[in-house]
Amino acid sequence: MSNKLIGAAVFGQSGGPTSVINASAYGVIRTALDTPEITHVYGAAHGIVGVLDDELYDLGKEDAHELKLLMNTPSSELGSCRYKIKEEKELQRIHEIFEQYNIRYFFYNGGNDSMDTCSKVNDYLQRIGYECRVIGVPKTIDNDLVGTDHCPGFGSAAKYIATTISEVYKDAHVYNTGAITIVEIMGRHAGWLTGSAALAGINGLGPDYIYMPEVPFEMDSFLSNVKKTFAEKNNCLVAVSEGICYPDGTFVAKAQISETDGFGHAQLGGLAAKLAHAAGQKTGAKVRGIELSLLQRCAAHLASQTDIEEAFLAGQAAVQCALSGQSGKMICFTREIENGSYKCGITYEPLSICANMEKNVPREWINESGTNVTQEFIDYVLPLIQGENKRKVVNGLPRFAQLKKIKATR
Amino acid sequence: MSNKLIGAAVFGQSGGPTSVINASAYGVIRTALDTPEITHVYGAAHGIVGVLDDELYDLGKEDAHELKLLMNTPSSELGSCRYKIKEEKELQRIHEIFEQYNIRYFFYNGGNDSMDTCSKVNDYLQRIGYECRVIGVPKTIDNDLVGTDHCPGFGSAAKYIATTISEVYKDAHVYNTGAITIVEIMGRHAGWLTGSAALAGINGLGPDYIYMPEVPFEMDSFLSNVKKTFAEKNNCLVAVSEGICYPDGTFVAKAQISETDGFGHAQLGGLAAKLAHAAGQKTGAKVRGIELSLLQRCAAHLASQTDIEEAFLAGQAAVQCALSGQSGKMICFTREIENGSYKCGITYEPLSICANMEKNVPREWINESGTNVTQEFIDYVLPLIQGENKRKVVNGLPRFAQLKKIKATR
Repeated sequence: MSNKLIGAAVFGQSGGPTSVINASAYGVIRTALDTPEITHVYGAAHGIVGVLDDELYDLGKEDAHELKLLMNTPSSELGSCRYKIKEEKELQRIHEIFEQYNIRYFFYNGGNDSMDTCSKVNDYLQRIGYECRVIGVPKTIDNDLVGTDHCPGFGSAAKYIATTISEVYKDAHVYNTGAITIVEIMGRHAGWLTGSAALAGINGLGPDYIYMPEVPFEMDSFLSNVKKTFAEKNNCLVAVSEGICYPDGTFVAKAQISETDGFGHAQLGGLAAKLAHAAGQKTGAKVRGIELSLLQRCAAHLASQTDIEEAFLAGQAAVQCALSGQSGKMICFTREIENGSYKCGITYEPLSICANMEKNVPREWINESGTNVTQEFIDYVLPLIQGENKRKVVNGLPRFAQLKKIKATR
Repeated sequence: MSNKLIGAAVFGQSGGPTSVINASAYGVIRTALDTPEITHVYGAAHGIVGVLDDELYDLGKEDAHELKLLMNTPSSELGSCRYKIKEEKELQRIHEIFEQYNIRYFFYNGGNDSMDTCSKVNDYLQRIGYECRVIGVPKTIDNDLVGTDHCPGFGSAAKYIATTISEVYKDAHVYNTGAITIVEIMGRHAGWLTGSAALAGINGLGPDYIYMPEVPFEMDSFLSNVKKTFAEKNNCLVAVSEGICYPDGTFVAKAQISETDGFGHAQLGGLAAKLAHAAGQKTGAKVRGIELSLLQRCAAHLASQTDIEEAFLAGQAAVQCALSGQSGKMICFTREIENGSYKCGITYEPLSICANMEKNVPREWINESGTNVTQEFIDYVLPLIQGENKRKVVNGLPRFAQLKKIKATR
């Protein structure tokens, strides 16, 4: 079998956006545009939904300079979706569109749900004998994908969190009257992001306690810890995952938040405010709850240059992997140590092992009391937040890519 | 009368911190240390409280390199306070301390309440005939000080807000399912910060609506605006001041938030969540409330270089103003246009006209419907957010000043 497959490529973005997902997009798009056997490069509007709806952009018609600005443009520039393929007729429809545009390369950028989509498309096309190479590009701030050392998007979110915690520490320690500050960080099931708050501790600006979903949360223990630290230091700074659960498995955030309380449903958060309030009741201290919300996943201005470059490499590698004849794989990162320094290597794993699974923080990287991370955790994250990005600023404001998004014609 | 007054100087920080208040500190401290007639430079721990408690640091004993890092260190490095002088015996105590350390220069960095403190100290010392020159250095992210074109701290907060709104816009527009996003911004009485969200609109990434405290808030009108825009665009982004009030003068944030609802008191916010919830009920859309909270006043990593330099100049000018024989003045900025470009000039005004007053956004800089700002507003703010700062980053993390804070001896 010759490795040479001539046809068009389609690229889609799926799931929650990150600061660097468009750097992966640029890796795929630029490499594909520069590949002679790839005849056209299409972008799917809102991921697989754009394929189903025949909404494809002809990315060959974009200005090269604007495309390059994707390297520092946050969020999913082509639009994203949360769409799970349920029926065979959807796969038939995808195949129909692929036939119509002669699409022979499918690159899909997302987290574990998106890898499931990717895997289903690959399996179906193989089964019906339609030659098409399907490669997944990892993406998630949550860093919970199996098969890869770490995920593009995580390093930038971790850098944002560590920097912001450092700054909030300074702010929260300003008054002689003391303060208790609770910072709520994303991560429904994995504590990678919340644990990254500990990096601020390298300069003595870290949280006193870190609560992650990997360890069951006990309100009494939390309150007595905060009370003790406040009594000692006249201050207490806590980082907490949105996904912490009581020992019975219910989300702490959800437990007391009803639709009728005027604050909306659990998605709106409220965990930081809730814990701050409880800490205030216990201690009488001035309290504040802060939710980092979307900012931690879209703050491209603070993206890690390491993360941006690795995200680009993942996209580039996806095209190279497909060109080499592979299909049904996800691009993965390995961690190499070269002359004592961190270096990111690239490999790939079957989509089936990456899809639908979650990688949590190992229990041994969390301290015994479950209230902070260990040095191993810090050593793991630190290389990923290195490097200040080279974003374009015009008039003091970020200059993001402005694509024309011209509809593709068959 | 000779202008030459030989003695020590004390510097204090007061009120809410900003990203650049320490740049003003460095302006005062560096200039004072370099002035022969100033024999010692002391820092008051927690502003005037440190004077009353005889807690002064000898800033001459600090490492020059660490002091310079104050230029990019957020929050009030010497500690701050919210302390209002109420009795003459407090002024007597201040005089006693000043006598003990031979303090002849008092520099106080803060907002309108702090200028009131400054003014009282000046009046008292003049009345009893103790020769001391008292100069206020302006500071507030709220930009509401009277007598100055703008305030150090505002430009950096405005840059943070405009950048963050640009990024949130990208994130909020990613799904085909649409979204309504409400961003809550600081400003109890003045809408300068919230209005700055409009700067993101220069690149087409601005909010659809901006609600500021200067215009009474009508819930019905807000909901019908959001509903209309969501129907047209499948999206709606709103920036709102924490301080918006209903026509009867009650805070919208406070109106339905009681101590007993489990979310804490009004200081914890909840306005964004409340408005998002109401918008969701009205439209059925997916909604999200985001509160920028402390981040907007401590995000030194995104501080405006223009603001940093002006903050330094304000501190430097305070010392120069005192050396020239002035007292009872606050340093003020003027706006010069030089060859068509913005340039910041420095002047001073009597403390009495700056203290305790607030400058709101002029009604003519807000559009007729009270839901956005005019071009005049944007032209006013834009020069203040220019320039990327030159902060020190070590290991991917901010490297802030680390002062020794050695207690002063008489």
